[in-house]
Amino acid sequence: MTAKKRIGILTSGGDCAGLNAVIRAVVHRAVLTYGWQVVGLKEGTQGFLHRPVAYQALDLRMVDGNMMRMGGTILGTTNRGDPFAYPMADGTLKDRSDEIIGGYRELGLDALIGIGGDGSFAILRKLAQKGGLNLVGIPKTIDNDLGLTEVSVGYDTAVGVAVEALDRLQPTAASHQRVMVLEVMGRDAGHIALAAGIAGGADVILIPEIQYTIESIAAKIKQVRATGRNFALVVVSEAVKTLDGGGAMKEYQGGEKRYGGIGAYIGDKIAEATGAETRVTVLGHVQRGSMPSPRDRLIASAFGVHAVDLIAEGQFDRMVAWSNREVISVPIADAIARYACVEADGPLVKTARGLGISLGD
Amino acid sequence: MTAKKRIGILTSGGDCAGLNAVIRAVVHRAVLTYGWQVVGLKEGTQGFLHRPVAYQALDLRMVDGNMMRMGGTILGTTNRGDPFAYPMADGTLKDRSDEIIGGYRELGLDALIGIGGDGSFAILRKLAQKGGLNLVGIPKTIDNDLGLTEVSVGYDTAVGVAVEALDRLQPTAASHQRVMVLEVMGRDAGHIALAAGIAGGADVILIPEIQYTIESIAAKIKQVRATGRNFALVVVSEAVKTLDGGGAMKEYQGGEKRYGGIGAYIGDKIAEATGAETRVTVLGHVQRGSMPSPRDRLIASAFGVHAVDLIAEGQFDRMVAWSNREVISVPIADAIARYACVEADGPLVKTARGLGISLGD
Amino acid sequence: MTAKKRIGILTSGGDCAGLNAVIRAVVHRAVLTYGWQVVGLKEGTQGFLHRPVAYQALDLRMVDGNMMRMGGTILGTTNRGDPFAYPMADGTLKDRSDEIIGGYRELGLDALIGIGGDGSFAILRKLAQKGGLNLVGIPKTIDNDLGLTEVSVGYDTAVGVAVEALDRLQPTAASHQRVMVLEVMGRDAGHIALAAGIAGGADVILIPEIQYTIESIAAKIKQVRATGRNFALVVVSEAVKTLDGGGAMKEYQGGEKRYGGIGAYIGDKIAEATGAETRVTVLGHVQRGSMPSPRDRLIASAFGVHAVDLIAEGQFDRMVAWSNREVISVPIADAIARYACVEADGPLVKTARGLGISLGD
Amino acid sequence: MTAKKRIGILTSGGDCAGLNAVIRAVVHRAVLTYGWQVVGLKEGTQGFLHRPVAYQALDLRMVDGNMMRMGGTILGTTNRGDPFAYPMADGTLKDRSDEIIGGYRELGLDALIGIGGDGSFAILRKLAQKGGLNLVGIPKTIDNDLGLTEVSVGYDTAVGVAVEALDRLQPTAASHQRVMVLEVMGRDAGHIALAAGIAGGADVILIPEIQYTIESIAAKIKQVRATGRNFALVVVSEAVKTLDGGGAMKEYQGGEKRYGGIGAYIGDKIAEATGAETRVTVLGHVQRGSMPSPRDRLIASAFGVHAVDLIAEGQFDRMVAWSNREVISVPIADAIARYACVEADGPLVKTARGLGISLGD
Repeated sequence: MTAKKRIGILTSGGDCAGLNAVIRAVVHRAVLTYGWQVVGLKEGTQGFLHRPVAYQALDLRMVDGNMMRMGGTILGTTNRGDPFAYPMADGTLKDRSDEIIGGYRELGLDALIGIGGDGSFAILRKLAQKGGLNLVGIPKTIDNDLGLTEVSVGYDTAVGVAVEALDRLQPTAASHQRVMVLEVMGRDAGHIALAAGIAGGADVILIPEIQYTIESIAAKIKQVRATGRNFALVVVSEAVKTLDGGGAMKEYQGGEKRYGGIGAYIGDKIAEATGAETRVTVLGHVQRGSMPSPRDRLIASAFGVHAVDLIAEGQFDRMVAWSNREVISVPIADAIARYACVEADGPLVKTARGLGISLGD
Repeated sequence: MTAKKRIGILTSGGDCAGLNAVIRAVVHRAVLTYGWQVVGLKEGTQGFLHRPVAYQALDLRMVDGNMMRMGGTILGTTNRGDPFAYPMADGTLKDRSDEIIGGYRELGLDALIGIGGDGSFAILRKLAQKGGLNLVGIPKTIDNDLGLTEVSVGYDTAVGVAVEALDRLQPTAASHQRVMVLEVMGRDAGHIALAAGIAGGADVILIPEIQYTIESIAAKIKQVRATGRNFALVVVSEAVKTLDGGGAMKEYQGGEKRYGGIGAYIGDKIAEATGAETRVTVLGHVQRGSMPSPRDRLIASAFGVHAVDLIAEGQFDRMVAWSNREVISVPIADAIARYACVEADGPLVKTARGLGISLGD
Repeated sequence: MTAKKRIGILTSGGDCAGLNAVIRAVVHRAVLTYGWQVVGLKEGTQGFLHRPVAYQALDLRMVDGNMMRMGGTILGTTNRGDPFAYPMADGTLKDRSDEIIGGYRELGLDALIGIGGDGSFAILRKLAQKGGLNLVGIPKTIDNDLGLTEVSVGYDTAVGVAVEALDRLQPTAASHQRVMVLEVMGRDAGHIALAAGIAGGADVILIPEIQYTIESIAAKIKQVRATGRNFALVVVSEAVKTLDGGGAMKEYQGGEKRYGGIGAYIGDKIAEATGAETRVTVLGHVQRGSMPSPRDRLIASAFGVHAVDLIAEGQFDRMVAWSNREVISVPIADAIARYACVEADGPLVKTARGLGISLGD
Repeated sequence: MTAKKRIGILTSGGDCAGLNAVIRAVVHRAVLTYGWQVVGLKEGTQGFLHRPVAYQALDLRMVDGNMMRMGGTILGTTNRGDPFAYPMADGTLKDRSDEIIGGYRELGLDALIGIGGDGSFAILRKLAQKGGLNLVGIPKTIDNDLGLTEVSVGYDTAVGVAVEALDRLQPTAASHQRVMVLEVMGRDAGHIALAAGIAGGADVILIPEIQYTIESIAAKIKQVRATGRNFALVVVSEAVKTLDGGGAMKEYQGGEKRYGGIGAYIGDKIAEATGAETRVTVLGHVQRGSMPSPRDRLIASAFGVHAVDLIAEGQFDRMVAWSNREVISVPIADAIARYACVEADGPLVKTARGLGISLGD
């Protein structure tokens, strides 16, 4: 039996589906099993900068009903403002880390659960080390680019939204004999594009880990036509815009707006190279705000319970992780040290190539 | 008892959800009730230009199973090529209407069911009058801009896809305190934007029938903030790009690509006027290719049955229509004479205003 | 400009999708346009029986965000307890109508919006006439059996859930060559079964308005087999259990549990008559609790706005209604006087027969 | 480079979502990478019993378009008929294994891919050993009860359908203050019920691996009420009917129909024990026929590609498996030797208990 505790929880960085399910699980475990208090910080670490600290007490009723099913985060979040170099109104950067630590003290917290990705964890860890905060991390990122966990909260849902879009683009592509380009999210890694492209029946998938050429894409589309099918589905990870795609690409990078995004750029180039009619869809934030998939809710629930248990056991500076059907924990430092982009010889790349999907190379 | 007939069916213009359900209903009625033959022309009137004519015989097995549930059209369609001024490879325009009429004769058709919108009906009617074709029309258009029918096939599904996007944008807008802009389809009419905006909980809806100003939009967003809510949902009909929105808009119209579409343009202007973070989603063709909604399938089925009955009764040059829970028919000429844009004092505009939604004026 | 008012709103009878969207629309219109106060009664008229009256004030924040997208009713509802003959704990029935009227006075209401079906409206009207309540009705019923309105809130969603189930039963029926029976809701009318069956590709639809025989069903299934398709989809309205289906049916009615419901009974009888493997799904309350469809939200919004306007105009004892793409109002008395079951020669029956669907007769 | 081969593929046992995606992946890999021929047997091993063998050639066009998105199996399947003891028309059992083996020879197959569960694999292995068939297995089962693979095709979709039902039952349960019972599939294992219950926010989950008592369930529902929430969600795995639940349960097992299924039985008993209004939904085969989830399609694709590669490598008598984000293979014998029911101290049971969910014990 552990002593009564008061723990804080915050969501940090870009939002995604499943955050509310994490929050609910943390509250259920902390209150029902341990009899602790839980407080939720408003808008990530921003909540700690207010005086009094901006937070809300989280009891069972607060997290009841439909809350676990809703996208977004009831606590709010932001991806602005590193407290060690906080952008002030006058344009200067200021170290406000002591204010965060002071806020943690003001609330009398025994521990803090941070739900975030690698960027958030790096900052939270620095704060924890400086101020002696008892930190436990829960991984969330639609990009699934966090090392040491098979999956992070939000990824499965984002893939699902992208697959659904491909399901809808296929019939209209077929009816009009068009090449449909779908631009999906992915800051630096191509996981969403790759998984969604395989599951959604794409012919071409462009990810930032693999250098593409327009010639290779065009060759695939012509090969598809040769089999008697006059349409194609192309998935483009937005991160592809960072690739050096040669002359035209440099032009793109010099004036993104001129093309209305990397998807539109790829669409234009395919039209030029193949003569195909192309149309472009940019899913944007519908990939973040959707109702969490069952799997995201399940993982979120398992993570939330386990994170509270880590606090009960006094195990800090650790991140919960999913590995081989189990919830484990790993040092946060290790998790963020290894960026998990798509491996060129990994199982999904192999599956994609095995299906005859072109990766643009 | 009518004599055995052979009837043709074609889908024309932009595709939408529910076309396959129409085709299935026509085949069921024609084969099961009347014992007729049905042939489907490939890619609208294009099929008639081939020799031999490009078509496929449609029997019960062809239209069985999941076919009615699928988006798109198994017959293919196109929105290129007025046969009275057909664009030839050498760049000239040629009157190929006699070839179409000849194709109809070659197939020995007793009647032709055309599934289309106002543009397609205008051409099909001209062909029918010139060549003595027995034409029956079935209205389909995601824009719902056809007069004399309450609803056309494809509209309900398109609205549903847009509403679902708003459902997904709301939580992420709230989590990050952003203004989310959703650009939806609508060639000249704002029906999709208006219905989706109301059903999806939008704060601002811009449609081509109502002149907007950025100032008015900004005022609404500031009013929402004053109630303590720091996010907003904005729906923009793509047809809004035709409005004369003053100086900045003229700049947009001179270089659409510079802004990456009207949604992105509106997003930029809102950011400027309110300081809000904005994000833009462009749904594009997912609004066309989605699985048809139950209502679209129901209307498609009722239309298909009734169209065949009109042929049995020898009533041609007519379009089936939905009116007050009944399927009726009206002269095609009357249907296309009245363009059904959003009425400024109609029930949905009144509902939108009643809910406090800004229409930008 | 009308004087400030305080209006009440309650949901009565079985819940359905769209109730929250009605409540939101009422609050938006009343607060934003007229500056009135709105209070929501708890659990229909039950709220008026408590002292103090059980209610909650409804302001813009209460109805914000995702609330319009959620099934159910935030006010709660019940289909127990006619206040004119209220079942007391001791087993007696008591006239508690004066308590309801007293509750209305205690709250100082200027008017009351009742969201209900025919049963609720009959009681609310009696209360209004006895106590001088200013009543406006908004029609909701998944059964769509209210006269004088084309559609009631909740129907479209219920149909959608049933259609989705048929979409899912079709592939497994085909894979195993089975007859799948889907039992859907419908207290006395077959609207859900009929619409869902048409839109979901059913082969047989049984509704309470049309007397079926097992022989006729079996004949249809054998006819389908003769075309080479060895599976079938059968939709059964739960209200079919009230039909006199002959000897076996009498046995069913004497011991419903023995068959586990009318769907299971029909499944057994089909298996006996055709030798087919049959499987049964009973959807139950998923038809009520689903997220409201776009159309239900649109109708709910239009109804809510219009109902408040009726109060502003002093038009009471009326129900809002949907007619020919407009929102109108009709006397409540007229609406409940005409029970809208499926018409044997109506457009949907005609469509079903036109598609070759058996109605069991 | 391997020599040209001709391989067979069949689906066996109960159908589920994702089978078509497996078939498509096998064809893509075999044709595009190796240039082999693929033939699909009709209705599992039944196809081999016909003379000529009942099969269809599978080329790229056959598996194109929407096919991977559809539930069921285009090849058909059955869970009747062990060929070593085949039920004949005269009621006797006959060993027809030589006919199967003969059919394999007649088709000139180099290898056979069997998509099945443990029952099917046991039979297929016996056939392979007797007749020298080159067998590769791909695991599918909505029950996820196959050992040595983290997941089988069909499970994720089945869980998703059950979760969606809970999402829909929650609002109506809350509106009417009811206890909603959802009966889900699960022949001998409780995986679907457990995962769906956690992800769907259930209060009670009954699985065959854990002995429940009505008293314990009732205690949980009363505890929920004590927190001010007057409704609850209960998930019951159909396999629970095999548990010895004491006196009343024996009565149930003696006359299942009297209760209309285990879900209805549990609902009755909860009503008795708590006085709550209960309602029951029996999802049935909608859990099998749904469109496959993105994850099921991804796993199906990876499995299909890898299975073909095993054939190319001459590795037979093995089953592909998912393990720690990789596709591996294991001896079929090992996979079926270990039945994977829910482990009483596994991560999901721990998560459920951590959330305060009652498992009825």
